[in-house]
Amino acid sequence: MTTRIEHDLLGERALAADAWYGIQTQRALENFRITGIPISHFPELVRALAMVKSAAAHANRELGVLEPRKAEAIQAACADIQDGALHDQFVVDLIQGGAGTSTNMNANEVIANLALAKLGHPKGAYQHLHPNDDVNRSQSTNDAYPTAACLSLQFAAQPLITAIGELGEALQEKAVAFADVVKMGRTQLQDAVPMTLGQEFEAFAVNLGEDIDRLQEAQRLLCEVNLGGTAIGTGINAPARYQALAVEHLARLSGRPLVPASHLIEATSDMGAFVFLSGMLKRFAIKLGKLCNDLRLLSSGPRTGLGEITLPPVQPGSSIMPGKVNPVIPEAVNQTANQVIASDLAVTLAAEAGQLQLNAMEPMIVYNLLNAMRMLGEACHMLRSRCIVGIEANRETCARHVEHSIGVVTALVPHIGYANATRIVRQALHSGATIRELVIAEALLDPARVDALLSPQAMLAPSTEA
Amino acid sequence: MTTRIEHDLLGERALAADAWYGIQTQRALENFRITGIPISHFPELVRALAMVKSAAAHANRELGVLEPRKAEAIQAACADIQDGALHDQFVVDLIQGGAGTSTNMNANEVIANLALAKLGHPKGAYQHLHPNDDVNRSQSTNDAYPTAACLSLQFAAQPLITAIGELGEALQEKAVAFADVVKMGRTQLQDAVPMTLGQEFEAFAVNLGEDIDRLQEAQRLLCEVNLGGTAIGTGINAPARYQALAVEHLARLSGRPLVPASHLIEATSDMGAFVFLSGMLKRFAIKLGKLCNDLRLLSSGPRTGLGEITLPPVQPGSSIMPGKVNPVIPEAVNQTANQVIASDLAVTLAAEAGQLQLNAMEPMIVYNLLNAMRMLGEACHMLRSRCIVGIEANRETCARHVEHSIGVVTALVPHIGYANATRIVRQALHSGATIRELVIAEALLDPARVDALLSPQAMLAPSTEA
Amino acid sequence: MTTRIEHDLLGERALAADAWYGIQTQRALENFRITGIPISHFPELVRALAMVKSAAAHANRELGVLEPRKAEAIQAACADIQDGALHDQFVVDLIQGGAGTSTNMNANEVIANLALAKLGHPKGAYQHLHPNDDVNRSQSTNDAYPTAACLSLQFAAQPLITAIGELGEALQEKAVAFADVVKMGRTQLQDAVPMTLGQEFEAFAVNLGEDIDRLQEAQRLLCEVNLGGTAIGTGINAPARYQALAVEHLARLSGRPLVPASHLIEATSDMGAFVFLSGMLKRFAIKLGKLCNDLRLLSSGPRTGLGEITLPPVQPGSSIMPGKVNPVIPEAVNQTANQVIASDLAVTLAAEAGQLQLNAMEPMIVYNLLNAMRMLGEACHMLRSRCIVGIEANRETCARHVEHSIGVVTALVPHIGYANATRIVRQALHSGATIRELVIAEALLDPARVDALLSPQAMLAPSTEA
Amino acid sequence: MTTRIEHDLLGERALAADAWYGIQTQRALENFRITGIPISHFPELVRALAMVKSAAAHANRELGVLEPRKAEAIQAACADIQDGALHDQFVVDLIQGGAGTSTNMNANEVIANLALAKLGHPKGAYQHLHPNDDVNRSQSTNDAYPTAACLSLQFAAQPLITAIGELGEALQEKAVAFADVVKMGRTQLQDAVPMTLGQEFEAFAVNLGEDIDRLQEAQRLLCEVNLGGTAIGTGINAPARYQALAVEHLARLSGRPLVPASHLIEATSDMGAFVFLSGMLKRFAIKLGKLCNDLRLLSSGPRTGLGEITLPPVQPGSSIMPGKVNPVIPEAVNQTANQVIASDLAVTLAAEAGQLQLNAMEPMIVYNLLNAMRMLGEACHMLRSRCIVGIEANRETCARHVEHSIGVVTALVPHIGYANATRIVRQALHSGATIRELVIAEALLDPARVDALLSPQAMLAPSTEA
Repeated sequence: MTTRIEHDLLGERALAADAWYGIQTQRALENFRITGIPISHFPELVRALAMVKSAAAHANRELGVLEPRKAEAIQAACADIQDGALHDQFVVDLIQGGAGTSTNMNANEVIANLALAKLGHPKGAYQHLHPNDDVNRSQSTNDAYPTAACLSLQFAAQPLITAIGELGEALQEKAVAFADVVKMGRTQLQDAVPMTLGQEFEAFAVNLGEDIDRLQEAQRLLCEVNLGGTAIGTGINAPARYQALAVEHLARLSGRPLVPASHLIEATSDMGAFVFLSGMLKRFAIKLGKLCNDLRLLSSGPRTGLGEITLPPVQPGSSIMPGKVNPVIPEAVNQTANQVIASDLAVTLAAEAGQLQLNAMEPMIVYNLLNAMRMLGEACHMLRSRCIVGIEANRETCARHVEHSIGVVTALVPHIGYANATRIVRQALHSGATIRELVIAEALLDPARVDALLSPQAMLAPSTEA
Repeated sequence: MTTRIEHDLLGERALAADAWYGIQTQRALENFRITGIPISHFPELVRALAMVKSAAAHANRELGVLEPRKAEAIQAACADIQDGALHDQFVVDLIQGGAGTSTNMNANEVIANLALAKLGHPKGAYQHLHPNDDVNRSQSTNDAYPTAACLSLQFAAQPLITAIGELGEALQEKAVAFADVVKMGRTQLQDAVPMTLGQEFEAFAVNLGEDIDRLQEAQRLLCEVNLGGTAIGTGINAPARYQALAVEHLARLSGRPLVPASHLIEATSDMGAFVFLSGMLKRFAIKLGKLCNDLRLLSSGPRTGLGEITLPPVQPGSSIMPGKVNPVIPEAVNQTANQVIASDLAVTLAAEAGQLQLNAMEPMIVYNLLNAMRMLGEACHMLRSRCIVGIEANRETCARHVEHSIGVVTALVPHIGYANATRIVRQALHSGATIRELVIAEALLDPARVDALLSPQAMLAPSTEA
Repeated sequence: MTTRIEHDLLGERALAADAWYGIQTQRALENFRITGIPISHFPELVRALAMVKSAAAHANRELGVLEPRKAEAIQAACADIQDGALHDQFVVDLIQGGAGTSTNMNANEVIANLALAKLGHPKGAYQHLHPNDDVNRSQSTNDAYPTAACLSLQFAAQPLITAIGELGEALQEKAVAFADVVKMGRTQLQDAVPMTLGQEFEAFAVNLGEDIDRLQEAQRLLCEVNLGGTAIGTGINAPARYQALAVEHLARLSGRPLVPASHLIEATSDMGAFVFLSGMLKRFAIKLGKLCNDLRLLSSGPRTGLGEITLPPVQPGSSIMPGKVNPVIPEAVNQTANQVIASDLAVTLAAEAGQLQLNAMEPMIVYNLLNAMRMLGEACHMLRSRCIVGIEANRETCARHVEHSIGVVTALVPHIGYANATRIVRQALHSGATIRELVIAEALLDPARVDALLSPQAMLAPSTEA
Repeated sequence: MTTRIEHDLLGERALAADAWYGIQTQRALENFRITGIPISHFPELVRALAMVKSAAAHANRELGVLEPRKAEAIQAACADIQDGALHDQFVVDLIQGGAGTSTNMNANEVIANLALAKLGHPKGAYQHLHPNDDVNRSQSTNDAYPTAACLSLQFAAQPLITAIGELGEALQEKAVAFADVVKMGRTQLQDAVPMTLGQEFEAFAVNLGEDIDRLQEAQRLLCEVNLGGTAIGTGINAPARYQALAVEHLARLSGRPLVPASHLIEATSDMGAFVFLSGMLKRFAIKLGKLCNDLRLLSSGPRTGLGEITLPPVQPGSSIMPGKVNPVIPEAVNQTANQVIASDLAVTLAAEAGQLQLNAMEPMIVYNLLNAMRMLGEACHMLRSRCIVGIEANRETCARHVEHSIGVVTALVPHIGYANATRIVRQALHSGATIRELVIAEALLDPARVDALLSPQAMLAPSTEA
């Protein structure tokens, strides 16, 4: 393997001749091996880094602090990377010390070498175009990295929001399909009063749908970026109009409505937007978990459980019990939800660990958020396509449950009184008879009246009587 | 002790004759002793329960399902409780089974007995006015309890928001007072570039201030109440126009802009607004924790730490070391922040444990949220009054740090180049000399130029040069 | 109210004349109001503090650094407090800054004033016997407080271990009572193979019983105390043989097999034993939570759930639905379990926040552990006495479930093959017939053979055939 | 691409002709894509699965329920896999529904096909040797999977324990090297009393060392395996002596002191050993986090921090500030510690989610534990080799801190009294003078006496005076 030599503050190091990254990336590669997951695992982060560098080059050029020739080469390199080039050169482990410096330098070095190639220079000929002096011009990791992070999280949120929307639609379709399936509602796992299976699925759909709004709010918070703050947010070494220009270019390049942070020193160490996003992902995970717990309860059986719905079988359920089919898709979603809840704790721990003008744990925050969004998106897609769309109602079971339930007595309370109702329930539990049978037997109401009061129409709609 | 006898579904029970609560409360009192903390610990919850019962009575009366005489007695009883009467009769432990039924029945029973007294009847004479049939009319625990919870959380949020605001103001006052104290900024606990102590405190103020907006958003979500849903949200046994009327009355009585939930079945089991609020409290706790960590770092010393600020001494710090004063106030706040972060996990666990049409863990959610808000409010107040307002800047230390720092070299990079700058830093670290001394000694820049570039004015404002 | 004046490092302060505590306690009382829960809430902590002070006085006297007369007065005061005297004078909030200094000084001051009374002096006459110089002699908060904490946790563990043992016995009694109730086992909420209800309850008993061992291990770790380390563990200002003597006396006074920490500097900041204990409490909470989730599942119904057991009713379940009875006791236990899991996070956050030679968050660790143990003990007691002992098996339902289950086919696989078994299952699910009926109808096995293979005896014991 | 067709309960599916796995693996591959991390990511899990299958084959053969020819082929296939063959065929995502069924079937299928090859049959010719009937003989996922999990965790623990040991040794070496460096100890970040840097590093070493014992305890709990329980632990379809024999073979093959679970039904759903292990990993993570926080504090500077040690530079620290070097290795370790703490929450959530006879979330538990152990092992290795071994003491700074500290006054208290000491401290803080200077100036002690009392020897060892 042929090599080339590069130098930095600490000395020199041999690099593979075909490596597009440079010495600082090389050192980081050797230093950090915790997760084994490189930056390139999240293409949205690579793209966001390229956009930040391109926006900076635009601004620097316009402000006269970067030669047009260099700026054009950098912008061209960034455009290639946005289009998918050289992603495999973003090699540093996602859990890294240095508050993102290694990620920033990985971007600076790859872009510098690609720009050098465009200018006809060999890799490493930084005298012609320098990773720090040119690509990182008017920037610090302290602003370039969080800005790229905010942008990448917005990119990652889009497919998740789409997946939630599609999952909601699939649930809503089931709500329509099951609109006429009357069943018993349950509180605390005890028979309560009747409802429809359609209402149950509609509640799922409405419940998840609300989180799209919450994620949009999170996006809004992420639009405030600290580009232009350079080191610690004082803007040291950046030209005066740089912040406004750079953010404007970045908004244009990314298509996101970015705005400059109003207080750069605060913005540099503030993890608030990340914590907010993480909290919203956790909230959604909790809901997804509750939905899947319910699906598993409702489909429990086939003979000795609630058995009100049947989930589509997607794989044999047992290595020993023939014919067993398990709710494996909701189970996988429940595990995903738990991972995301745990991930929120990781973000929390990291966010509180900020010190003075910076939070050195930002890389793990970004990693956990990107990972959580990807997992949740996969989970929504899996749940919709491999489970929800194929759910069937067990109409007979639902009807039998209502018929035998004692909870329907609630509908009679206004007509036979709480005391009679309580007595009838006790008899029913003791004898096994239905509420209807007992009320008629005791002549508390005439049969037609009982049937009217216990009809789904009557029980499902709020009484209109005074 | 004289007693009276009451009856319920499970039999009879003797109650202290002077107890304003009834048999169901008595049973709950015997059943639950986990925390030892009764409902009355949170007066905002007692007041919210009274308002819900009063609003229901108003609506029931207007819809003709509650006699005016009874409605008036109930409303009068509720008004007394809102004004502080009989809070000590709200005795059930805050961690209770039954999804809030015991809390709801505690309210129903106390209000019934107080209303009975107003009508001239003895306690327990429920044939004249009944806890379930009259006070709980058109309600279920499933809607009355969450509605009261949402309301009580809004009441509890007000003093917290005020306390955050006042804390922010105190920090802002320090920002003004310290506006001219130049000091070294630090990233990753390593010397970075200069800033002012005023900027540091202003960043704290801005940072916390943003959470007032987040808490207002949480309030907005809590304004959507499910009153009118009765059991599981079908509205069973409630008159048709009851939902709208009851919520309208509750909004009026509480002064909060409440709106009826758009999907009652969804709203009955949905914990989303609570999870959101909890997430926002956690976010604020994280920020408060970071602030206090910083205060402890900056005041570390007095001789062997950073020593840039001095916290006001509030108690001797050691039982053995004379003269030691510790940052006890920030330490207590840090612990509070950690409790709130843990509390968010409790809420998370409870929220995911919902099943089908209800979440049986709602009491612990309400308990944790009310407790977290109270603790955070106390912490803000304590931090402001016993620490922030008395903080003093150690101006000499700050100035000495800047003078001796190597980080100031960053300001010279555009003028002497990155390579020279790096070399100078190495020499400085080795010899103990200052950057200024070395740059002048090497004649890289003339002394006046160095002084100009290293002046606070130059370093603190983004360069205006191209 | 008459007052007396005391002085400290920071100045003077008026105290209520009848206060047994002194100025430093008074300051702490004013400084900390976060939880509203005073030290006295945990009498085991007050007793432990008194024992530590008494042990120190014994050692100091023997080493000649405390006058016998003073030592005797201190020991007598401590003995009174161990017997319950003056607990209401331990007033400082459990969440406090200062790493326990305020708790330590509260003990020093109350003991000093009580000892002064025994010597015939008024409160506050510290020239005769001083809180710091005499009661705290050869100690620092750094060692006295953690030692008292370790001891109090051991005291608190005893009733918890007893409660777990009793709960296990109640479950084991049910295991015996239900030994002949054959029912379907379930994996992933899907019908699996038969088992007995007795086996299910025995598994609960065995499962919880293992945690008694884990808590005993935790006790063992807590026996290593750092008394004698004084400030930061160097033993500064303590006589040479003090450590050994003081721990020996404390072991004798407390009846616990305490040993001196082998590395005092390490022991001073180490939270390992607390984290271990917290982890074990969490482990037990997880198991308790799973047990209660299972009880709620198994008792779900009464008509539309699994309905295999009936929990004893302890209170009416609904304010609107007559006859509804809810599993309120397991629900309260589930909430307790969640609180304890959250509490473990609080301990975790605090433990990681240690810095250099001390952990300033120790007060919240002690608070969370004592609170978690008390809540768990209450939960075990409540669960046993109000739920487990009254559980009844629904034998008919269990039998019907087995009869109709398709899971029993597993027992036939070795005899009819996996392929036939799978086909039979499909037919059963489609037609509603039982496995037994179909196998006989297809003449795959003769009826007597089927009955033998599907008998409980055959299915519940591992096959003895080769 | 050529394909072959396989069949299962749900129908048929085409597989790549060269796939060693079968149809059930293929379905799982399509179903689960949450993490993108396949079983093969953890070779210790693949090896453990192979050992379980081999042990079962041995036992089955000896009990006469598996033909010797088949048993030998299975054993040979397993031996190859233990040696590293076909690991890339273990393709199912680690987060999967089905409680490990897909992992178990992946193993069954790969082993069956490899055994078939050894017998001269093509892939998929299961009529000659069947994944379920032969490889999975006398097993269920319910016992085979947890047993393999327990074994793999023991394998994974070994390198972690080694890494902790080596880290401890490196810290101990520094303890020796720094034994004579006197410095100020700090409590609550405030100057306390002197100690040596050697003591500080020795405390780190001792602190971590204790966790090796805790991990060994965890290993012991993992040695109790439920192999032989088959479905839900009743041992259905396994020969009578199978449990004992299979565990005996597995102990022999693995070299681990495995024992049969004493209560198989309990053992099948019990996650206690996993929770214990996770708790111990979290405990170690907390300690590692505290260690790295301390390293970052002690090395803060270089000019405006504590600056008592220098960490070896491993990469340039800033893209903008020349000469800046950051503590990137401890920062990466801190992030790892936080991930492991979060991972413990994931395990907790999963463990509590068990229902009745099984815990369907076991795959995520196994994933989190294996991942946490790998990350911690990497972190220990990285911390030792790239940081600890290169740490240097800044002796001058340490000495200057002691000289100027006010904390040294503590050593004089027994000789000048607490009141004088307190007064001297105030003067020192006000004037900037040292304690030594003031005590001599006031003639409280003669200079020689002061020097003796403030000598390191005197301050570092407990006083021997009475």
